[in-house]
Amino acid sequence: MNISNNFIYECDSCGKTYERDLVRYLCPDCSEEYIPGNPLKGVLKLIFDYDLIKKKFEINKPDWNLFSAVEEKYFPDFPVGNTPFFKTKNIGNNVWIKNDGLNPSGSLKDRASFLVVAESNRLDIDTIVAASTGNAASALAAVCAASNKKAIIFVPESAPKAKLVQMILYGANVIPVKGSYDDAFKLSLEYTEKFSGLNRNTAYHPLTIEGKKTAGLEIFIQNNFKAPDIVFIPVGDGVILSGVYKAFYDLKMSGLIEKLPKLICVQAENSSAIHNFIVSGNYKNLESSKTIADSISVSAPSNAFMARKAVLDSNGFSVTVSDKEILEAQKNLANKTGIFAEPAAAATYAGYIKFKDKFNSDEQVVLLITGHGLKDIEAPLSVIKIPEAIIPDIKNIKIF
Amino acid sequence: MNISNNFIYECDSCGKTYERDLVRYLCPDCSEEYIPGNPLKGVLKLIFDYDLIKKKFEINKPDWNLFSAVEEKYFPDFPVGNTPFFKTKNIGNNVWIKNDGLNPSGSLKDRASFLVVAESNRLDIDTIVAASTGNAASALAAVCAASNKKAIIFVPESAPKAKLVQMILYGANVIPVKGSYDDAFKLSLEYTEKFSGLNRNTAYHPLTIEGKKTAGLEIFIQNNFKAPDIVFIPVGDGVILSGVYKAFYDLKMSGLIEKLPKLICVQAENSSAIHNFIVSGNYKNLESSKTIADSISVSAPSNAFMARKAVLDSNGFSVTVSDKEILEAQKNLANKTGIFAEPAAAATYAGYIKFKDKFNSDEQVVLLITGHGLKDIEAPLSVIKIPEAIIPDIKNIKIF
Repeated sequence: MNISNNFIYECDSCGKTYERDLVRYLCPDCSEEYIPGNPLKGVLKLIFDYDLIKKKFEINKPDWNLFSAVEEKYFPDFPVGNTPFFKTKNIGNNVWIKNDGLNPSGSLKDRASFLVVAESNRLDIDTIVAASTGNAASALAAVCAASNKKAIIFVPESAPKAKLVQMILYGANVIPVKGSYDDAFKLSLEYTEKFSGLNRNTAYHPLTIEGKKTAGLEIFIQNNFKAPDIVFIPVGDGVILSGVYKAFYDLKMSGLIEKLPKLICVQAENSSAIHNFIVSGNYKNLESSKTIADSISVSAPSNAFMARKAVLDSNGFSVTVSDKEILEAQKNLANKTGIFAEPAAAATYAGYIKFKDKFNSDEQVVLLITGHGLKDIEAPLSVIKIPEAIIPDIKNIKIF
Repeated sequence: MNISNNFIYECDSCGKTYERDLVRYLCPDCSEEYIPGNPLKGVLKLIFDYDLIKKKFEINKPDWNLFSAVEEKYFPDFPVGNTPFFKTKNIGNNVWIKNDGLNPSGSLKDRASFLVVAESNRLDIDTIVAASTGNAASALAAVCAASNKKAIIFVPESAPKAKLVQMILYGANVIPVKGSYDDAFKLSLEYTEKFSGLNRNTAYHPLTIEGKKTAGLEIFIQNNFKAPDIVFIPVGDGVILSGVYKAFYDLKMSGLIEKLPKLICVQAENSSAIHNFIVSGNYKNLESSKTIADSISVSAPSNAFMARKAVLDSNGFSVTVSDKEILEAQKNLANKTGIFAEPAAAATYAGYIKFKDKFNSDEQVVLLITGHGLKDIEAPLSVIKIPEAIIPDIKNIKIF
């Protein structure tokens, strides 16, 4: 393998491997036609040339191209990532926040869109197609705008208004569908099959996982080249969790860390297909999902299999939180840290509150905040009240 | 002067100087009681020990404490700034964006709140009071939450809902007033006078200017320790412009740059008191201000005098843009760069479009984006349309 071809694809289901460019989406051997309501089989993961990395990677002059599926020269002119990572004493002695809501379009999904658009630059494809609950779509629309690519996006019509406004303003072709995320997913696959374009559906395109991996790599870098002990991650499709796992897996395989952090999967109570799978060992689709945390509302998570393996392999576990707990957590997180996280992202903190006694106080915990609260300002209005306006006279004011 | 006292205050109106801690807000000598509808007189600026900086500052190992009004040990545990700075070919050959909408609370105002809260830590004051059109208040609420400070905030009841939701969720005591920003300003001054607390009103507290200065210092750093040729800045009260000016003024006085960038003041057509002042030389209050760009809607800008001097001293100029131009610019900016800026921030780009032919194509232009578009999703709805939802069947889809 040389630097421009420093990885192979390996099927996460059957283990078959493929050279770069001999495969694009799922494993040709074991994947099946997409049926709404089923997770994907044959998701591909990238196995890097870890011997080469061991040889070439220097911690004092790190070359992250060695961990990248696409060469830097194809990167969009649109900086993503480099989001704050910091310790927050108000939450706990050794609790850190990675605030990925501060990506340009307001969510971690910018990372995946960035890498898929980079891949489209390499392949010279000018149209990118995706289905999304909202954040992946705004992310794709933003990166495509900066890169002069056409974005074609299928979303359930129930997506929060702010996300719709965003993606339309970025200039994407947006098709709201009367149906679920699964319906949008199917339609987007049919679109690329019938009309061409590169499909960016999460997990379906393996580089979505690699893009999200950069959140994990950044935690490692910002944590002074150490892995934390525990990472809480909100889970819908399971791709962010798989991406963070992949970062630490690659680092371990490259001899840069010894132990994976425990990955804690946090799901909403009524959108908990992966949680149920982790706990029971048997995968079962949910008939429907319903949670205030729209970004993790998924009945048939596309990356269920890989996400479960990641949690088990890292010695992590899985928790569910109710919508009430999510909204309380959103408020408390804002109150204690100054971070306004969207409900799905606040679920991370809700999970932490529920299970913090499981850890020693000296273990380093990271809460991954995946999206900005400004994405959906209606959600918190059930737990706060905007005060009545007063006539501006100091006599009407008491001391606070 | 020693490092813990590396500056003096100088009155921008009468030139009188004061040692640190002998003055807090306006010049005791020449300032007058605040009358709503008047800019502030006696705003203080900080004159640093430039000889000391010349002696101690090393470009290869820069110590930015030398340029800071508050020592690092007092800084809140709440990272602000470090926002992206990048070249965007889709706008122009040598046009760069500083995207300060990616501060934690979604606007550049986090920088001012950060420094004032740092100052309150030094002074051991636990309550901060402010009047705001919205962004400064959300910023203050966020930094106070992270720092266990009490925030007391006066806002006009017309502030966009997203900003109100944000500041309340952060746990601030929010008092919407039936009146203008000026009324809120007056009330907040009366509150601190009657009940104590540190007042963070923009320009009134001199460290708001110093906090915003860090945006200019970051541009210098991210631009490989060079000043750009031109910076477009949206202007309401005139404090952001004064802060950016101060950065380059300090750098020039320290021998680190030779020439100030030309600062271009961009105001909304119906909120143009500073523009009128720059153009005519005579200051006149507006009776009222009205623009879709709520963050720069100010009839009597608190920092009018200092902002005008900054524009003139830098050889810049001033432009106004209509609400229609602002909304078109917001859409085009999103379309070309993937950046969703709030209307006030998009005014920057509207000003650039109007006057780009005034510059040579090799001059380096920076557009300062001051706030995130997610702060107000209603504004762009007059120029875009959310498409009708379709029944999810590929037969209903044509190629885009």
